[in-house]
Amino acid sequence: MTTPEYQIFSLGSNPKLGNEIAKILGTKLSAIDTRQFADNEIYERIEQTVRGRDLYVIQGISDPVNDNFMKLMIFIDAARRASANTINVVLPYFGYARADRKARSREPISARLIANMLESQGVKRVITMDLHADQVQGFFDIPVDHLLSMPALGHYFYENDLLGDDLVVVAPDHSSVGRARKFAELLHAEWAVVDRRVDNLASNKSYAVTGNVTGKRAILVDDIIDTGTSMVVASEALVAAGVTKIYAVAPHAVFSDQATNRLIESAIQQVIITNTIEVPVAKQFGKLIQISVASPFAETIRRVNAFESIEDIMKSPDNLDVML
Amino acid sequence: MTTPEYQIFSLGSNPKLGNEIAKILGTKLSAIDTRQFADNEIYERIEQTVRGRDLYVIQGISDPVNDNFMKLMIFIDAARRASANTINVVLPYFGYARADRKARSREPISARLIANMLESQGVKRVITMDLHADQVQGFFDIPVDHLLSMPALGHYFYENDLLGDDLVVVAPDHSSVGRARKFAELLHAEWAVVDRRVDNLASNKSYAVTGNVTGKRAILVDDIIDTGTSMVVASEALVAAGVTKIYAVAPHAVFSDQATNRLIESAIQQVIITNTIEVPVAKQFGKLIQISVASPFAETIRRVNAFESIEDIMKSPDNLDVML
Amino acid sequence: MTTPEYQIFSLGSNPKLGNEIAKILGTKLSAIDTRQFADNEIYERIEQTVRGRDLYVIQGISDPVNDNFMKLMIFIDAARRASANTINVVLPYFGYARADRKARSREPISARLIANMLESQGVKRVITMDLHADQVQGFFDIPVDHLLSMPALGHYFYENDLLGDDLVVVAPDHSSVGRARKFAELLHAEWAVVDRRVDNLASNKSYAVTGNVTGKRAILVDDIIDTGTSMVVASEALVAAGVTKIYAVAPHAVFSDQATNRLIESAIQQVIITNTIEVPVAKQFGKLIQISVASPFAETIRRVNAFESIEDIMKSPDNLDVML
Amino acid sequence: MTTPEYQIFSLGSNPKLGNEIAKILGTKLSAIDTRQFADNEIYERIEQTVRGRDLYVIQGISDPVNDNFMKLMIFIDAARRASANTINVVLPYFGYARADRKARSREPISARLIANMLESQGVKRVITMDLHADQVQGFFDIPVDHLLSMPALGHYFYENDLLGDDLVVVAPDHSSVGRARKFAELLHAEWAVVDRRVDNLASNKSYAVTGNVTGKRAILVDDIIDTGTSMVVASEALVAAGVTKIYAVAPHAVFSDQATNRLIESAIQQVIITNTIEVPVAKQFGKLIQISVASPFAETIRRVNAFESIEDIMKSPDNLDVML
Amino acid sequence: MTTPEYQIFSLGSNPKLGNEIAKILGTKLSAIDTRQFADNEIYERIEQTVRGRDLYVIQGISDPVNDNFMKLMIFIDAARRASANTINVVLPYFGYARADRKARSREPISARLIANMLESQGVKRVITMDLHADQVQGFFDIPVDHLLSMPALGHYFYENDLLGDDLVVVAPDHSSVGRARKFAELLHAEWAVVDRRVDNLASNKSYAVTGNVTGKRAILVDDIIDTGTSMVVASEALVAAGVTKIYAVAPHAVFSDQATNRLIESAIQQVIITNTIEVPVAKQFGKLIQISVASPFAETIRRVNAFESIEDIMKSPDNLDVML
Amino acid sequence: MTTPEYQIFSLGSNPKLGNEIAKILGTKLSAIDTRQFADNEIYERIEQTVRGRDLYVIQGISDPVNDNFMKLMIFIDAARRASANTINVVLPYFGYARADRKARSREPISARLIANMLESQGVKRVITMDLHADQVQGFFDIPVDHLLSMPALGHYFYENDLLGDDLVVVAPDHSSVGRARKFAELLHAEWAVVDRRVDNLASNKSYAVTGNVTGKRAILVDDIIDTGTSMVVASEALVAAGVTKIYAVAPHAVFSDQATNRLIESAIQQVIITNTIEVPVAKQFGKLIQISVASPFAETIRRVNAFESIEDIMKSPDNLDVML
Repeated sequence: MTTPEYQIFSLGSNPKLGNEIAKILGTKLSAIDTRQFADNEIYERIEQTVRGRDLYVIQGISDPVNDNFMKLMIFIDAARRASANTINVVLPYFGYARADRKARSREPISARLIANMLESQGVKRVITMDLHADQVQGFFDIPVDHLLSMPALGHYFYENDLLGDDLVVVAPDHSSVGRARKFAELLHAEWAVVDRRVDNLASNKSYAVTGNVTGKRAILVDDIIDTGTSMVVASEALVAAGVTKIYAVAPHAVFSDQATNRLIESAIQQVIITNTIEVPVAKQFGKLIQISVASPFAETIRRVNAFESIEDIMKSPDNLDVML
Repeated sequence: MTTPEYQIFSLGSNPKLGNEIAKILGTKLSAIDTRQFADNEIYERIEQTVRGRDLYVIQGISDPVNDNFMKLMIFIDAARRASANTINVVLPYFGYARADRKARSREPISARLIANMLESQGVKRVITMDLHADQVQGFFDIPVDHLLSMPALGHYFYENDLLGDDLVVVAPDHSSVGRARKFAELLHAEWAVVDRRVDNLASNKSYAVTGNVTGKRAILVDDIIDTGTSMVVASEALVAAGVTKIYAVAPHAVFSDQATNRLIESAIQQVIITNTIEVPVAKQFGKLIQISVASPFAETIRRVNAFESIEDIMKSPDNLDVML
Repeated sequence: MTTPEYQIFSLGSNPKLGNEIAKILGTKLSAIDTRQFADNEIYERIEQTVRGRDLYVIQGISDPVNDNFMKLMIFIDAARRASANTINVVLPYFGYARADRKARSREPISARLIANMLESQGVKRVITMDLHADQVQGFFDIPVDHLLSMPALGHYFYENDLLGDDLVVVAPDHSSVGRARKFAELLHAEWAVVDRRVDNLASNKSYAVTGNVTGKRAILVDDIIDTGTSMVVASEALVAAGVTKIYAVAPHAVFSDQATNRLIESAIQQVIITNTIEVPVAKQFGKLIQISVASPFAETIRRVNAFESIEDIMKSPDNLDVML
Repeated sequence: MTTPEYQIFSLGSNPKLGNEIAKILGTKLSAIDTRQFADNEIYERIEQTVRGRDLYVIQGISDPVNDNFMKLMIFIDAARRASANTINVVLPYFGYARADRKARSREPISARLIANMLESQGVKRVITMDLHADQVQGFFDIPVDHLLSMPALGHYFYENDLLGDDLVVVAPDHSSVGRARKFAELLHAEWAVVDRRVDNLASNKSYAVTGNVTGKRAILVDDIIDTGTSMVVASEALVAAGVTKIYAVAPHAVFSDQATNRLIESAIQQVIITNTIEVPVAKQFGKLIQISVASPFAETIRRVNAFESIEDIMKSPDNLDVML
Repeated sequence: MTTPEYQIFSLGSNPKLGNEIAKILGTKLSAIDTRQFADNEIYERIEQTVRGRDLYVIQGISDPVNDNFMKLMIFIDAARRASANTINVVLPYFGYARADRKARSREPISARLIANMLESQGVKRVITMDLHADQVQGFFDIPVDHLLSMPALGHYFYENDLLGDDLVVVAPDHSSVGRARKFAELLHAEWAVVDRRVDNLASNKSYAVTGNVTGKRAILVDDIIDTGTSMVVASEALVAAGVTKIYAVAPHAVFSDQATNRLIESAIQQVIITNTIEVPVAKQFGKLIQISVASPFAETIRRVNAFESIEDIMKSPDNLDVML
Repeated sequence: MTTPEYQIFSLGSNPKLGNEIAKILGTKLSAIDTRQFADNEIYERIEQTVRGRDLYVIQGISDPVNDNFMKLMIFIDAARRASANTINVVLPYFGYARADRKARSREPISARLIANMLESQGVKRVITMDLHADQVQGFFDIPVDHLLSMPALGHYFYENDLLGDDLVVVAPDHSSVGRARKFAELLHAEWAVVDRRVDNLASNKSYAVTGNVTGKRAILVDDIIDTGTSMVVASEALVAAGVTKIYAVAPHAVFSDQATNRLIESAIQQVIITNTIEVPVAKQFGKLIQISVASPFAETIRRVNAFESIEDIMKSPDNLDVML
């Protein structure tokens, strides 16, 4: 008895990425009938046998987050009842990941709730990218294969001859210092941080830059661009501090609310993101550069299935010097 | 140490019903801050201590079903982490309940999935009304207090002097026969059924009435009016069969798609529903009659909290003769 | 390392069916020592290694239901501790399936209890036939391969030239309407229903036929023949309504109490059942026809083990036209 | 809100003991409708509200063990769904407790299976007596209140002036040495053991007494008298070794097979048992003495409910000197 | 029936803190016999009944971490089997909390493992202080009452007139920026960070200060002082940057290895810690100031037991202005 | 896709045994980086991919028991997150196994706690030797492959021509009677027991021998030699009873406290143990004989991996006659 081939499903949050991944793997997406009824209830039916198969289902928890998440859960239920051998969930974007702790009493930890719901329904593995906090891995008991976009994003600067001694990586907020510091290390650059500071006379708070940025080109680094406010406010502080050019870099382009307009009108000269979230045409704009991460996802699926280590796909930026 | 009072929360799927229930119980809804961000992620914060309290949270899984369901799940997470003693979920409408079995290979059983997600996150009890199939109770291991709207709906006919020997209760589909039969028993009427039948010559199928309806007033009974098609098609068959007047009765008014228009234009003279789902003004129409079920829900909460039996709230129609 | 062959066990509720299944699969039942001590405690010992094997254990939960169920549970415990790879339970008859909802307060849902006990002890799959209600599939989180006897039972009428325009399929009770309707569709026949009806004058209830049966041959269809009362009462109503010939069809022949005598003495001319329950010689009678379902069970085991779809074994009657 | 009173249920394995316990507690057994259908399926319905109540359900897993066990499981399901606060199971006799380890490959550990099934369905506590092995307590994660019959059984010898220096406590088997030794300590007596020994010449095995018994009165002590063989064979060895009088003592009187006859015809002069298992009239005989253990069970229920320690009910025989 | 009083246990990792907490609550620690055998196996026996009681067990997972953790687990097992109502674990110090994510492939997340072991054995609540990362709350599904030492530590500066415009709060590492920033806000001060920076000429890395510290008094803030290296290296960078005085502040004084000597010999003038970990006399030194946190722990236990909110015990520093 | 090879890890409790097992299997131990920090927290990192591999991890829960146990748990966490296919735990010595029941109120059952922690973190199988009580197998739901050292230990007597009619096997305590009896059967010898007996005159207790030992060579048999007291006290009773020569036999050499000295100074002439626990050089002595059990462990791993029965490795002594 030979074990049957694995199958890849894409549930619709990001069809282009799903197709790219399948193409790289030299296969096709498996067929599934997905409908949303007039009352918004979701119906799915898997259209070929999955008996004994290892399934990889690609679905980001991106806007509309709740519909996309329920599509995933309902798929899991159908696949489990249909005797799939294992269900491996590929989450290019892990929605609700920012709700990862109680900042105040009686708040939820929604990221753990998402983890619980996936795990309690029999998911065997999560493959995801750039979690808001590394600790979210610990919200799961199942294996989490945690990919990083930094190598791909850093490569963009290398490839376009944008590296140099005048480059500084800037965290738009104190909470992004760790991320900025790692990207700085990858690019052999210094780092700085923009943050709200206490004004002792007036008890007001204003944004100020900590670190040396004057006369430099700055790369603002974050994990998510949501409404864009954080990036744009930081860019204003950088302009005030005398930077010459600003790049904004982040893997996850949520682009909610007026994000597109805010970014267009800002002093930021390039916005470099990945395709973990599909940016609809209406939200695209001239200075937006989208880097595909289909390749690391595809390679991870291939190796998981071949029982090979994915350590070097996920390796920390320190090891990427060969690239530079 | 005295045990603190229970608290009631309403998460927004049906604010009027929540307020009515609280009012009947002589209390107020507890405060909660619920927001939906620009990317559709939900945030909730409970605004007073729930430590050691028994919570009753009212939230129907009605359109938008996935948002409403996730609001409920996130509330449960917040309440659990905030040391609530018990979380009792009041589901006036149990969305996805129709997905209660695999009609074809590789379909999900979404109703069980909903049950699993609620139960695995620590819900202690579900209070609901008119489940699509009674067996859905068995999708839970926790207690399900299953209320019936029939007494309230039947009372409407009694109160308005609409009973009589010329009344027949009709199932719009073979799957509603059980429900129709029970309602007929409550109203001391006969029952009939409209169903697709085989036309032997043409192998076509047409709708036909099984049972004696000619010259009678017919009450079409179902549990859900979704797109309204089922009720309207049945009413056409009844008209063809010579009924004199048609009432459509169902507790759950999903009213998706063109339901309102379909019902307005149909031969149905009265559409009698409950407020398990809040019908927005735009979907209301002249011949719509809405019966409130706040009272049985409120009484159930009171008794659950007082350790009293709810058997007579839920009693089968046979015992309701006193009413007639 | 090659994966070892699967093994089939039969625990004694239906030894003939077990042997038939093994024979069709070209294999032998694996050896097990099963004893019931003087105090009725059950002892079992598996007599060859099951390490790493996929096991299929055939045991109906038929009379004596509790002994048969405990034999199954104790087998599961032994097999699990003996390092079986998977335990697949074949339940030709799912006892307690009728206890699938709370009809009154404080009743159990024993079918869910059975499901819980199987699932909590590590069963990986259930293969069963003609569940009393389809929703019982949703009592499990593990896969349920749900077979239908209708194709086999319908084939009997085809094979014996019993089809024709004068055939009507009759539900002996309103709760069997769905089943009767499906069988009618399979046989390209009309359907009717026998039910208790309100007698307006006397407030009594009598059995009456809804639908056109006069002068026709009627097939009474149910899932279980237990005491036989339901079938016999319905047959009396059919005789009164002028049917010319009556067949009674049901997959599960519980035949408890005086079932055999009741059926012998009734107007029913043929009783067509399957061998999901072994009918002891003492309960057999002249007009009883037993159809073997060993074949669909064997084929399901073969396919499950070969990672093939069982969709067409389980296909709904609509698709069986090729047969007719 | 005052917490409602606890309720006691007796499911029929031992109605006399149930009534005695209720009487001592000054209460009545709560009403339950228990039926076994013609096909041996069990049906139960609790006849008054148990909402929020602490329930104590008395049911020994004695012959017919599987029916009695399923009666218990079905009660648990009904009680849980009916919103009982806690379900405390009183097992005067824990059937299957002898299946507590794998003596050979591929055997079950049925005692653990019983524990799992009880615990997985929500039982909160087990109250039982004289487990075959103390380690069975460790098969549960929930509290086990483990009572001992030795104080009551020892009291019989004290009360009837049967103590004395000529008394020796004898284990009928090497596996009962621990139990015999404890009873000996309680009665300030020596102990001995009857066991199969190797006969070096013939490689045969015969029963022989280890320890000094000649000219003494012997008390054979075991936990269960099942077929009686073990006690009777030991009594024969004791007679051969010159004992003057033999008492057989054991809490659990399974009395299966020809136990009654064997004991009647044996040299044993008194058989002293408890009422953990109800001995039917047909199995009673002249030299049988039955000691009631209703009192320790009732006192345990009272204390559990009053949050009092049961340590001195369960205290080890060493502390019972006050009695002597 | 009145509910019995709660009980407090202290298992020996920090006896002084345990006694202080009990004293503030006006009660005594409950008696427990704890032994460690010659082979290092731990034995515990609770010395009075805990039946139905709410237990609060105080045990830090501090050095020897594994022994201290197993003492806690064994207590939980004993308490659960002894019918405690709830087990609330008070962890003044959460050992292994730094192992909260996979920094490299094939590392454990030991903090989640600790959470799992506690939760799977029935712990109902964790009360702890200053988790290494807030996300560790999300490693639990049970409530975590997360206290902060900052108000108490900040109060030291207020009480001793150490506040002022020349004060700067410094993170000894980029990973402590969030903590430093919050403490700065509480003290109305600016913040800075010491971190390894890239030296462009030599590709070496040296410690450098980001932010304005020259001529100021600096408070180095961290959550744990383990070997002391991090604090001492940062103090050297601060001295080089021209600070006038250095305080080192951290709640958890692990003080392993040569920590005491390192701190004594450093430029740090005061080391301000709490008593979450008991510092043995041999590790104490002149410039060490220990602030007791018995009071917030005691107050939390009191409120948890009285169903009161602990929000203002845990309130974020912003709200503590009243103090200043 | 071929399944990759299994891997063996040894975590340091018994490195020699680990290496011996690997050598017999013709393989090498897999690499793991294990450290214990200055504060005693354990860190582990698996140094090659384990993705999809079946892992066998050898770690006895011997002194220091808590550190050794936590090393095992942390390995399990790392292996699980690293996508190991299965984790099979080889416990040459099962620490805490003596805490297998509640001898007094409010004691833990630590052996079950150990079982729970292993099982709840995803261990698939336990391979162990000579459990203190066979019932401990029932503390697990996962398979326990329970090896016996008796064949190897018995072989020593055969190999060295120490068998004979003058040999008697003696239990040093009534609780070891079962073990002694089995060993006696294996060696075709009689058995006896040393136990504390009541002295009727003085109510004192002294050790006395039950059974015929005078003039014989005695083999004292136990499962564990901990402090050695039990063996030495028994040897004194045997000397007093006139035995000519004493051997002490036990698989598990805990040797805590003054065990070595006690045994050296005793009348015991040979102490025969296995290497389930590594005896440090400082605790070895002249009359100590250590039998390796690497072979049965290695053979078990081989067969588990090859899906072969291990029945004859574990076979009861009765079947070992071929050896004698």
